[in-house]
Amino acid sequence: MLEKVDLTKTMTKEEYKEKMPELETKLGELQRQCKHLGIPVMIVFEGFGASGKGVQIGKLIQSLDPRGFRVFAIKDETKEEQMHPFLWRFWTKTPERGRMAVYDGSWYRKVLINRFDKSTKERDISRDYESICAFERQLSDDGNVIIKLLLDIDRQEQKKRFDKLLDNKETAWRVSKGDKERNKQFDRYQSMMEEMLQKTDTDYAPWTIIEAMDRRFATAKIYTVVIKALAEKIEKVVQAQAGKAASSVVGETQEEGIASAAAKMAAEAANDLQESILAKTDLSLTCSPEEYQKKLKKLQGKMELLHGELYRRRIPVVLGFEGWDAGGKGGAIKRLTEKMDPRGFVVNPTASPNDIEKAHHYLWRFWRAMPKDGHIAIFDRTWYGRVMVERIEGFCTKQEWQRAYKEINDMEKDLADHGTIVLKFWMQIDKDEQERRFQERQKNPDKQWKITDEDWRNREKWEQYEDAVNEMLLRTSTDYAPWIVVEGNDKYYARIKVLETVIDAIEKKLQKKK
Amino acid sequence: MLEKVDLTKTMTKEEYKEKMPELETKLGELQRQCKHLGIPVMIVFEGFGASGKGVQIGKLIQSLDPRGFRVFAIKDETKEEQMHPFLWRFWTKTPERGRMAVYDGSWYRKVLINRFDKSTKERDISRDYESICAFERQLSDDGNVIIKLLLDIDRQEQKKRFDKLLDNKETAWRVSKGDKERNKQFDRYQSMMEEMLQKTDTDYAPWTIIEAMDRRFATAKIYTVVIKALAEKIEKVVQAQAGKAASSVVGETQEEGIASAAAKMAAEAANDLQESILAKTDLSLTCSPEEYQKKLKKLQGKMELLHGELYRRRIPVVLGFEGWDAGGKGGAIKRLTEKMDPRGFVVNPTASPNDIEKAHHYLWRFWRAMPKDGHIAIFDRTWYGRVMVERIEGFCTKQEWQRAYKEINDMEKDLADHGTIVLKFWMQIDKDEQERRFQERQKNPDKQWKITDEDWRNREKWEQYEDAVNEMLLRTSTDYAPWIVVEGNDKYYARIKVLETVIDAIEKKLQKKK
Repeated sequence: MLEKVDLTKTMTKEEYKEKMPELETKLGELQRQCKHLGIPVMIVFEGFGASGKGVQIGKLIQSLDPRGFRVFAIKDETKEEQMHPFLWRFWTKTPERGRMAVYDGSWYRKVLINRFDKSTKERDISRDYESICAFERQLSDDGNVIIKLLLDIDRQEQKKRFDKLLDNKETAWRVSKGDKERNKQFDRYQSMMEEMLQKTDTDYAPWTIIEAMDRRFATAKIYTVVIKALAEKIEKVVQAQAGKAASSVVGETQEEGIASAAAKMAAEAANDLQESILAKTDLSLTCSPEEYQKKLKKLQGKMELLHGELYRRRIPVVLGFEGWDAGGKGGAIKRLTEKMDPRGFVVNPTASPNDIEKAHHYLWRFWRAMPKDGHIAIFDRTWYGRVMVERIEGFCTKQEWQRAYKEINDMEKDLADHGTIVLKFWMQIDKDEQERRFQERQKNPDKQWKITDEDWRNREKWEQYEDAVNEMLLRTSTDYAPWIVVEGNDKYYARIKVLETVIDAIEKKLQKKK
Repeated sequence: MLEKVDLTKTMTKEEYKEKMPELETKLGELQRQCKHLGIPVMIVFEGFGASGKGVQIGKLIQSLDPRGFRVFAIKDETKEEQMHPFLWRFWTKTPERGRMAVYDGSWYRKVLINRFDKSTKERDISRDYESICAFERQLSDDGNVIIKLLLDIDRQEQKKRFDKLLDNKETAWRVSKGDKERNKQFDRYQSMMEEMLQKTDTDYAPWTIIEAMDRRFATAKIYTVVIKALAEKIEKVVQAQAGKAASSVVGETQEEGIASAAAKMAAEAANDLQESILAKTDLSLTCSPEEYQKKLKKLQGKMELLHGELYRRRIPVVLGFEGWDAGGKGGAIKRLTEKMDPRGFVVNPTASPNDIEKAHHYLWRFWRAMPKDGHIAIFDRTWYGRVMVERIEGFCTKQEWQRAYKEINDMEKDLADHGTIVLKFWMQIDKDEQERRFQERQKNPDKQWKITDEDWRNREKWEQYEDAVNEMLLRTSTDYAPWIVVEGNDKYYARIKVLETVIDAIEKKLQKKK
């Protein structure tokens, strides 16, 4: 998840001043409602050293009724704590119904800092993750809202902040030896964080990454995340109570009204701050026709050879293609496979599920199509339909698509553990380019079949899709099954990039397996 | 869980003939309803070799519409299957909505037979459990009923059955080399099974152990388990649909009527076949007053020494006491602690939760009271209230107490992993003995305070409690935190047994830690 984070985001002072008052008022309101409804809330702050956890907690609690929350600073275990099971100190710090607990550091210390400094043994890591997930699930099942925030900065920024602290006698003590070591071995620490995200990003206690290079941006984002989570929980609780109070209650109650208004507001605010993975794609990248022809020939030749090698070495490959309508999926797949032995690969076009497929779990039809060792399975549209079209068109419930991120990660992990190369391509074009291509298709009698009314309808939901895609890319790009966003305005460029990426991944795998 | 199984159970031919027709009719009915409602059903048969999986599957499907189910025999992977991730062959064998899949062997082969013969590496075991749980959770979330049956026989019986098969040329081939090896190393295989039960007995896919020494008993029990699971699911689905259809539906629908009648019937039938852990307690065991005095003095002296040793070696101990009212908990705790250094132990009496405790997760107050290293925490009544009084009095929902078995096992595992000795005592007396003690208390002015109206009321629910306790003992007796049923009609005998058991566990732990 960390790989796709855009750390360049900032917020101007003016924008901040304009946005915050409303967010602050709403948060206060929602806290009162949680109290009233007896909802316990847990907010976890984790992140790199000097990413600003303390400052952000300070900003957050400004809007809260101080009688309703408590902040716990989680450092090394005290002697008393060492003499108990690791979760003991966190169980004893869980909030009462209606109250909020804010954790500056948390139970994740065990699999981050303590793992880094080797006081957590590698052989215990699996068990610790199991304990952590069981802990969070039990509390979530009991009605807790669990909000987990990971404050993200890069190595240079961390170094800069450390240096600034060290320059001043008053603040130098705040940079520990461990902090310095983790800056030195930043990549090692970051990969532990990445594993933590993958193992513990669940539907009952999801992670949100906070881009923390810019203080104001981070504050605003934290507010929207907390507001959204609280508002959604309140709505659920109120609805469940209304359900219990039976059919006598007609229409929205007052609480529900406040909660749903807050949820809407937070969603809008969150939109403004959204993960702009797609937005930062550089669509001006091109490849000249001459260069394209030259490269294409070379790469296709290489691909042909590697395909044979994969077969010989019995390595399976899964390639998923998603993207905007007319984004160039078909063209890329065609160029990729053109020179490959057709006995060694299958292209699976994914249409709406048929009746038999509908009668199974949504992943069933994809599991069936997974390649055997030495074969390549290419999917033209994939299981990610669950978190895109099915989400947006309401073909599945909110709970279902929210759960799907982890389900999909689990499936891809099973594939990767078996030795499969898994790559996922998002073919990115902008809205203008799409229109140009649609028009072209409509004018060209040979291509008219490619364009339907539905394509035009989907186009109207561009922004909704963009949000869903951004969330998808963030939550499901893993080291074992990464997403590759392909700059697609120039078809030549896109096709070459796909070929190069596939070849690169295969070569790496072959080297590793030697 | 296996340790507490009573393998002596049998069913006479007459009883079998009387019971089965109704069960068979019901099962057929419920299958049709599952089909109608689109509920997919998965029934897993696992168990020791020659425990009769094949025969039992044959008996089960006799009542089923053959167009509605499919039996899958899971043996070693085919070449095709080897060339896919391990779960692939099971994903492709999941049932459609409304259909039933019966597995003769299953995905558990990976952590049983394949682990035994070392084709599953020990270092992969954790990951395999994770994959299995994710698989079952995903399918359960998608609406599948998952019924997992473990057919249990003992080593001698298995040997006898193998020998019989081997004696006959026609059947000898059915006993494989692996079967023989697993009989030789029965204990090793059984401990793998035990771990499997502990890791995968979840609320969404629970295990039921089938005592399979007697064929008829096993068949009847399998029928009741399947009927109960289907009926409960149907009820849930129908209720959810009625909820969706809004308040216009008043009263029970026809489907709901059939389902709830079937559930009730299955519950009653299951009662007859219940786990009789308590029933098999030998309450005639006694200890003479002279012997008692002699032993008591010696054991208390030993306990005093060991208590010091525990402190020196920093080993924490958790002792839970549960049992019938007037079962002798207080007396046993008193004799246990009499000679112990009061600075090193705490007795926690567990009353109804107070307001602050109620405002937390039910385990919170117990977590808080867990001992630090070197200390002993004794609980007079425990967290098991969740699956006894709270279950029976309706203080928590069915979902909540069903979930609690795993939650409690998780907690006790966290304690054990930290190095804690965890023992749980059930003080067993019979109903007559309880009445005798109640009467005695009422007559004795010094003891009158000990007896309340509530005690008499609880007594009326003796059978309900008995069922709950049997289920509790079965589901939560683990190798890391075993239940000890104490034969309590004779107080002297009971007190000595408690002391001896605690001393024994401490001595074992001290030896291990050396």
